[in-house]
Amino acid sequence: MPTDPPHSASANRAGQAGHGGKDDRADHADRADHAAAGISAASHPAELRAAFRAARWSSHTGGLAERHVQGNVVIVPREAAQHFLLYCQRNPKPCPLLAVGDAGDPRLPSLAPDIDIRTDLPRYRVWRDGQLAGERTDITPLWRDDLVTFVIGCSFSFEQALMDDGIRLRHVQLGRNVAMFRTNIATTPAGPFAGPLVVTMRPLAPAAAIRAVQVTSRFPAVHGAPVHIGEPAQIGIADLAQPDYGDAVPVLPGELPVFWACGVTPQAALAQARLPFAITHAPGAMLVTDLFNQQLASF
Amino acid sequence: MPTDPPHSASANRAGQAGHGGKDDRADHADRADHAAAGISAASHPAELRAAFRAARWSSHTGGLAERHVQGNVVIVPREAAQHFLLYCQRNPKPCPLLAVGDAGDPRLPSLAPDIDIRTDLPRYRVWRDGQLAGERTDITPLWRDDLVTFVIGCSFSFEQALMDDGIRLRHVQLGRNVAMFRTNIATTPAGPFAGPLVVTMRPLAPAAAIRAVQVTSRFPAVHGAPVHIGEPAQIGIADLAQPDYGDAVPVLPGELPVFWACGVTPQAALAQARLPFAITHAPGAMLVTDLFNQQLASF
Repeated sequence: MPTDPPHSASANRAGQAGHGGKDDRADHADRADHAAAGISAASHPAELRAAFRAARWSSHTGGLAERHVQGNVVIVPREAAQHFLLYCQRNPKPCPLLAVGDAGDPRLPSLAPDIDIRTDLPRYRVWRDGQLAGERTDITPLWRDDLVTFVIGCSFSFEQALMDDGIRLRHVQLGRNVAMFRTNIATTPAGPFAGPLVVTMRPLAPAAAIRAVQVTSRFPAVHGAPVHIGEPAQIGIADLAQPDYGDAVPVLPGELPVFWACGVTPQAALAQARLPFAITHAPGAMLVTDLFNQQLASF
Repeated sequence: MPTDPPHSASANRAGQAGHGGKDDRADHADRADHAAAGISAASHPAELRAAFRAARWSSHTGGLAERHVQGNVVIVPREAAQHFLLYCQRNPKPCPLLAVGDAGDPRLPSLAPDIDIRTDLPRYRVWRDGQLAGERTDITPLWRDDLVTFVIGCSFSFEQALMDDGIRLRHVQLGRNVAMFRTNIATTPAGPFAGPLVVTMRPLAPAAAIRAVQVTSRFPAVHGAPVHIGEPAQIGIADLAQPDYGDAVPVLPGELPVFWACGVTPQAALAQARLPFAITHAPGAMLVTDLFNQQLASF
């Protein structure tokens, strides 16, 4: 698991192709694939989940249900769930919880009335002793009475809010993945979960940076306001051209690098914990919920 | 426990005498008592905790460390803690978590470096099978390796923000406790924890009500924006003159009743769960932290 590329990387790439609304080839290809599966960007989240449940679509969810909240999924046994919940409570910026299931209960009624987490993701990854043990499109045979589901917000929601506000995101414009960096900021541990804060970086002109602080402050459920701005060395980032995950994104003269807490942080903590058993979504194959991104705004 | 008056009621009364800054008798009396104990409103939180630790002060904390965050305390065994943490995660408006300790660990380093929760409250209540089993000023003899401490935000912090903004709070002006009501809104259960949302009511002129929504939206860690405004019957409140807890506070012609989620909600859920063993702060005898109220603002 530690050596695997973080799944939100692919998730971002996929999602941003859709969010950017650009007619690049990936987007065209996605649309053709979607049509073949009987889904489209306009499909309701429930229709999408039905398609995933029927295994008509087992790839990434970028560009689908665009104005709706998509979430990262982590499923762990109850023993680890206690500490993982505490870890998220203590590190709300990188680990914003959208929902937590009851042990053994595959439903998540606060996200949609019909979700069955055993079938409703396009693709899952199964981990044993911290190592990738396979991918599946249905985890019903693996389900246990002690499994607890966590859904964690992702930056898709706040990126849409930024773009709706007229702020251009260079990685979207370039069709790249967002740049991600491990920092020298330690998260607050809980049980076996610990590790550095991972951040995303978006280059912005000063006025856009200020506006971005305002806009993302309204979205604490999806990482909220930035954690750092302007001085990468202060948080242990030596070279912006060499991200730890994702793609390099140039910072132009007169721009500031703006850093947000990233959902790779809990994934890294999960990897470090090397649990005997865990299930996550596969890269980019997120949980599509009935919530609108805008509903996550705190005001 | 269920028949006991909720502890935040006394807490509010005590706190608001201090917050209101009025020279009423209670406030004078408090000041004399504080002086005798070697503490004052200007004492640093660490000095106050030292006084509580030495049992020089075992009464309420209202009017002390005024600009600092005070918190409700709930201590339960690990088995119940799992569900209580989940209950708070699912009901963030009534149960805003400021900190959660590790099992068996009496420290809360995110609130102050020196806190020992076994000694640093002025007074504790011990509950057995849901019944009050006594009060203590030190719970060291009762401490166990499986006890988990929860600190939950209280409305002191946002009331100060409202008053700093020039909004007058009638219950403070009248020297009364805030009016609290059980609503017909169910909280989202978790394990044995469930029950109705309890709200506080503050009457405000329309412009002040709008401003109050803005101001309290900045404080999600202490209940955040109101949950209801203007139509008590819609949330199951038949008579504003008959609060379920606290004191009646008149709503004048042209004013709207504005309702916020209340920290009595988790107390009621705790009572309903009838745990074999639990410890809380005694009414009004809150945990005084090193955080400034203003630091809880989300922006």
